[in-house]
Amino acid sequence: MSGQLAFLQGNEVCVEAALYAGLDFYAGYPITPSTEIAEHTAARLPQIGGKYIQMEDEISSICAVIGASLTGRKAMTATSGPGFSLMQEGLGYAMMAEIPCVIVNVMRGGPSTGLPTSPSQGDVCQARWGTHGDHSIIALTASNHQDLFSITVDAFNMAETYRTPVVLLFDEVIGHLREKVVIPAPGELTVTERLRTSVKAGVDYHPYLPREDGRLPMSDFGGEHRYNVTGLYHDMWGFPSTSPEMINGLIHHLVDKIENSVNKIMRCKEFYLDDARIVLISYGSAARSALHIVENRRARGERLGLIELQSLWPFPHDAIAEKCEAAEHVIVVEMNLGQIAREVRLAIKHPEKVFLANRVDGVFITPTDIKNVLRIIQGRGV
Amino acid sequence: MSGQLAFLQGNEVCVEAALYAGLDFYAGYPITPSTEIAEHTAARLPQIGGKYIQMEDEISSICAVIGASLTGRKAMTATSGPGFSLMQEGLGYAMMAEIPCVIVNVMRGGPSTGLPTSPSQGDVCQARWGTHGDHSIIALTASNHQDLFSITVDAFNMAETYRTPVVLLFDEVIGHLREKVVIPAPGELTVTERLRTSVKAGVDYHPYLPREDGRLPMSDFGGEHRYNVTGLYHDMWGFPSTSPEMINGLIHHLVDKIENSVNKIMRCKEFYLDDARIVLISYGSAARSALHIVENRRARGERLGLIELQSLWPFPHDAIAEKCEAAEHVIVVEMNLGQIAREVRLAIKHPEKVFLANRVDGVFITPTDIKNVLRIIQGRGV
Amino acid sequence: MSGQLAFLQGNEVCVEAALYAGLDFYAGYPITPSTEIAEHTAARLPQIGGKYIQMEDEISSICAVIGASLTGRKAMTATSGPGFSLMQEGLGYAMMAEIPCVIVNVMRGGPSTGLPTSPSQGDVCQARWGTHGDHSIIALTASNHQDLFSITVDAFNMAETYRTPVVLLFDEVIGHLREKVVIPAPGELTVTERLRTSVKAGVDYHPYLPREDGRLPMSDFGGEHRYNVTGLYHDMWGFPSTSPEMINGLIHHLVDKIENSVNKIMRCKEFYLDDARIVLISYGSAARSALHIVENRRARGERLGLIELQSLWPFPHDAIAEKCEAAEHVIVVEMNLGQIAREVRLAIKHPEKVFLANRVDGVFITPTDIKNVLRIIQGRGV
Amino acid sequence: MSGQLAFLQGNEVCVEAALYAGLDFYAGYPITPSTEIAEHTAARLPQIGGKYIQMEDEISSICAVIGASLTGRKAMTATSGPGFSLMQEGLGYAMMAEIPCVIVNVMRGGPSTGLPTSPSQGDVCQARWGTHGDHSIIALTASNHQDLFSITVDAFNMAETYRTPVVLLFDEVIGHLREKVVIPAPGELTVTERLRTSVKAGVDYHPYLPREDGRLPMSDFGGEHRYNVTGLYHDMWGFPSTSPEMINGLIHHLVDKIENSVNKIMRCKEFYLDDARIVLISYGSAARSALHIVENRRARGERLGLIELQSLWPFPHDAIAEKCEAAEHVIVVEMNLGQIAREVRLAIKHPEKVFLANRVDGVFITPTDIKNVLRIIQGRGV
Repeated sequence: MSGQLAFLQGNEVCVEAALYAGLDFYAGYPITPSTEIAEHTAARLPQIGGKYIQMEDEISSICAVIGASLTGRKAMTATSGPGFSLMQEGLGYAMMAEIPCVIVNVMRGGPSTGLPTSPSQGDVCQARWGTHGDHSIIALTASNHQDLFSITVDAFNMAETYRTPVVLLFDEVIGHLREKVVIPAPGELTVTERLRTSVKAGVDYHPYLPREDGRLPMSDFGGEHRYNVTGLYHDMWGFPSTSPEMINGLIHHLVDKIENSVNKIMRCKEFYLDDARIVLISYGSAARSALHIVENRRARGERLGLIELQSLWPFPHDAIAEKCEAAEHVIVVEMNLGQIAREVRLAIKHPEKVFLANRVDGVFITPTDIKNVLRIIQGRGV
Repeated sequence: MSGQLAFLQGNEVCVEAALYAGLDFYAGYPITPSTEIAEHTAARLPQIGGKYIQMEDEISSICAVIGASLTGRKAMTATSGPGFSLMQEGLGYAMMAEIPCVIVNVMRGGPSTGLPTSPSQGDVCQARWGTHGDHSIIALTASNHQDLFSITVDAFNMAETYRTPVVLLFDEVIGHLREKVVIPAPGELTVTERLRTSVKAGVDYHPYLPREDGRLPMSDFGGEHRYNVTGLYHDMWGFPSTSPEMINGLIHHLVDKIENSVNKIMRCKEFYLDDARIVLISYGSAARSALHIVENRRARGERLGLIELQSLWPFPHDAIAEKCEAAEHVIVVEMNLGQIAREVRLAIKHPEKVFLANRVDGVFITPTDIKNVLRIIQGRGV
Repeated sequence: MSGQLAFLQGNEVCVEAALYAGLDFYAGYPITPSTEIAEHTAARLPQIGGKYIQMEDEISSICAVIGASLTGRKAMTATSGPGFSLMQEGLGYAMMAEIPCVIVNVMRGGPSTGLPTSPSQGDVCQARWGTHGDHSIIALTASNHQDLFSITVDAFNMAETYRTPVVLLFDEVIGHLREKVVIPAPGELTVTERLRTSVKAGVDYHPYLPREDGRLPMSDFGGEHRYNVTGLYHDMWGFPSTSPEMINGLIHHLVDKIENSVNKIMRCKEFYLDDARIVLISYGSAARSALHIVENRRARGERLGLIELQSLWPFPHDAIAEKCEAAEHVIVVEMNLGQIAREVRLAIKHPEKVFLANRVDGVFITPTDIKNVLRIIQGRGV
Repeated sequence: MSGQLAFLQGNEVCVEAALYAGLDFYAGYPITPSTEIAEHTAARLPQIGGKYIQMEDEISSICAVIGASLTGRKAMTATSGPGFSLMQEGLGYAMMAEIPCVIVNVMRGGPSTGLPTSPSQGDVCQARWGTHGDHSIIALTASNHQDLFSITVDAFNMAETYRTPVVLLFDEVIGHLREKVVIPAPGELTVTERLRTSVKAGVDYHPYLPREDGRLPMSDFGGEHRYNVTGLYHDMWGFPSTSPEMINGLIHHLVDKIENSVNKIMRCKEFYLDDARIVLISYGSAARSALHIVENRRARGERLGLIELQSLWPFPHDAIAEKCEAAEHVIVVEMNLGQIAREVRLAIKHPEKVFLANRVDGVFITPTDIKNVLRIIQGRGV
């Protein structure tokens, strides 16, 4: 990285990365532990001519983001668990209407008001399943500020590429941790711009007619073309349809554009995987502890490896199955009751070799917590 | 059944069963295809001295239900997908504060506005994971009106027994179908009353201190005892706590009271399972088609069987694993992209023998749809 | 049991059972937590005309016991870890010279002085391997006072049957716990008397010439016959030998008389084993917690079973392999770092399914400790 | 080796190596076949200003060694089986109090007085499990005098590095055999000196507070600092503690400092292992016969290999598992009833491929004995 060295909170890094990626609209309602994102955005957006709106709640926040995106803005909101629950209806609307946008959830302990100031990774399954109806979603995460920067840029890029909302799932530790980060120089990271239609004004524009490569060019709403946008099943003009064939096509389009791109969307880091007998799978702040224990045991000659997931959804079932094939044990390290462990079990051939190292008491999971699970699955007890 | 014969819509049956179970408060906002529940309740509740309130939206609806329940009422609301998304925050609050209540979701096609007038079973995973944070939930369903009656009564009973919100997941076919039902005579079905504290006024009442049997006696809010209710992690007095031990204890209490009772909560019907080589697993209206094909093939001497799930969550992994142990193929029949099929794969020892027979185009799945899948997995092609 | 109801400490029960089995000589040096055995024996032996000697240390104690046994007495000593270490040389002598006697080790936390007043099961491997040279040993244990009574009687019987020292491995919890026990009426339990030679005085008596059934009749030392007793390899007269054939024969005789009788010596209790998917293996006080968790989970429909070992050595490898064949997981519950878990791994076909639930901090292992391991090996994390 | 050529008995080599490693205190009681160690030390120690004491028995011998070590000496004792049994209590004290010292056991036939003048390897398991309570131990061995020299130096070095007693397990053949050895020049082999505290007099010294690298600096007892040493569980000042957390921490410290260093402690030699289909595992004098048969068969083109263990405890389970992974048969060659064969079975994935070639009749195991076992497992009978 050739850019500028900074010492920032994760929440601030997220904002800087969003700006790097082209953010020019933010609407949100503050909630711990995501509030610094609103705060920092409120200071930074006006400096570059972007718009920041403090909304009355989370429902209006996501709706404002959807509207702004339709008019051509790169738009983001940030919240934590309770606000994310309130955004579920809007999130589904953005999927169905294929509106690019980024929603940050800095996870705290849940359910309900839960533990506002403590970390957890309890909203992973909600990010996947929180809105009603069959659907798919992209959700990304990171374990350190340098990765957080590039993953945030990725989130904006994927939102544009796939015309879909993208969820950034950080956790309180990452959000509030201060560490070194190099802000990349402009041009160093790829920034994907909005794909706009080349259809001229006055000519029929089909907002839901994919190009040959599957992408759907957009037209800034309120601009050159008039078209319909709806949460109902719809045809290529955006008008409602109840034709079973049309419905079947649309739901598969919405799901497949993401699920079939799983290998392109997949972001993960691998450590010592080549000859690993015990593979840890982790993500977010928990992956820091996982890496620590892997390096500690490698130093003792034990063959541990780590897969750090940076994309959680779509879940890369096939890739994980392959990477874990030779492992005797797979330990998922996460701060919840095993939400990614479920997917790993669905992915791999011998689900009985999947174990869970976790904490759900608002305390960051430590290498010692992982070591204790390791001992038990090795049959070594306490 | 010795009761009164009736010919009703599923939505009406649900209301009659709720009244049988003791419903005396309803708050809701109408949405297709659940609206007849509001309608019928509005007519019936005043007749027995209960309260019906038409609310301004779904958020206020679930909040009113929570408040009413706290004051001692048996309370219910009903909605469909979009409204259910809006209720997710309130649902989490009810879990955390342990408020008994019943939420009906008459499923239509989603995501978003989707397909208001067509059936689907697309909200199954949302019922499980829709609110943020680790949690557990009870969700029940039925495939015919007689079962719908008793399952609705079960829902109210379980809400009281486990002090938890219970979700009734019907689908548009069941909601709008009219068929014969015998309304049981009073006393014929067990009705579980609110467990109230025996602690006298003026004595300390601990709203979150379980009895020896794990149940938490309630005290009508606004009545004899003053106590705190919060969505935050809390102690036995209901006051907020950030003690890791307390948090760990509470989240496990909330999850375990449901997951550890999976065998007691489990509701399912079995057809021809004893010697079945091919086991179908289905639920809701789809189970009607599944049963049809099983009986059709049995008549030809083929060893098919059916498990009709009436409880979807907590998912009975162990029981399903056992029932499917001898099967060569397991076919999950549902009207979504395989939401229960995921759980069946997680449950059974050889997930590679699980197949999916489904529709997601707003059309009811037929025996022919299932037969086509059957042919293919038997290697007989189309 | 038709006998007399009593409410006793485990240490007292051990003494009563020893008296029932014919104890008439005790030599020992007091050590916590076994001291009540010395105390109670000192009071009781004189009442029946037996001899109690307080020795200067544990080495002299076991030597006095060996000498008394040779003269025809049923002899016992009791100690705890440090004393048991000091007795190892004498124990080996008793094996080599085939002297029946009973050594009680009421286990406390070790190594060294360790934790005199707290329970552990840390001397299990020492009982097997503590003295030098290839050898075999019988070691028995019990989890409650009724079993402790009959197992103590068994210990005396086996000492006579196999002409060998027998170790009773109790733990501090059992030793100090007071609970109900029914002292069996005389004759209710079998008591094996010393097998004495029928060879007349003046005729050659071969102290180490086995009968056809493998047993070696004894002659009270100092009585009718004169013969040699040594810790060296010896012939049938008891005289030293360095003949490789003789040596090979004797070491195999010493080992095989015990190892080949493993099924006759084996004492174990089985709970819910028939259809168990998860088999717990435990012994001594730890088995009380193991049984508790098994019954608790059975009530929830989970297929757990328990093997409570009452004989630890010779370890019944084949029987354990058979009983665990259908189990998916085997959890050894013990208060050490996995000493019996090693044997279970050696015994069963798939050692990778053996896990350890243990404590080594001087605190009695609880059902909760076992539950936590259960959760992890089921992949359910905390 | 650039040192001085000598022709010595193994027992003498052991003494020369101990002196090389810094031995300056010896206390012992003579016993065949270790007596030449006492004899040679008695002659050699006074020459360098060290102290030799002939004690009244083996208990006082190990206690004197412990005391001398505490005052800052490098201390050793030597014995054979019966004496080693008597030393078990003291050995546990040295572990618990973390006293560096070296105990030599020149193995003869056991149990009991056994076979004083003949070889065996029957005390291997006793070295591991002979003292009461959970613990760990380092035990080393060698098959020839050159290795015996460097392994003896290793023993002293490890005793200092890990602050623990180290057992040297030779056998009668090695002890009494005379062969060529090159005494290394000073400085040629690394000698690890006592790690002494840098804490000044008058400042609090914590005898049981590990440095960052896990090592515990010592202070010569009776010197600058006053501190407590006990066999009880203790805190960082050496004072007794019954805190479960402290106990759990200490037992794991004692065990983990050794078990977690298994790869650093491991000493082994490999012969022809790369493509070996049949792997022999042996140690001590038996490894001489094992190497002979391997070389003999290699000359005929048969793919045999040998692992000669020089460290027996902590047993290198993972390393052995890896080295034997490709082998079709593993034959453990030892002079006992299979004590190391047990560990090999515990270590490797397919224990059914482990066989035992042994003798227990006081006669040295020959290549022919091994060949006979080889024929049988190759299906070629006698």
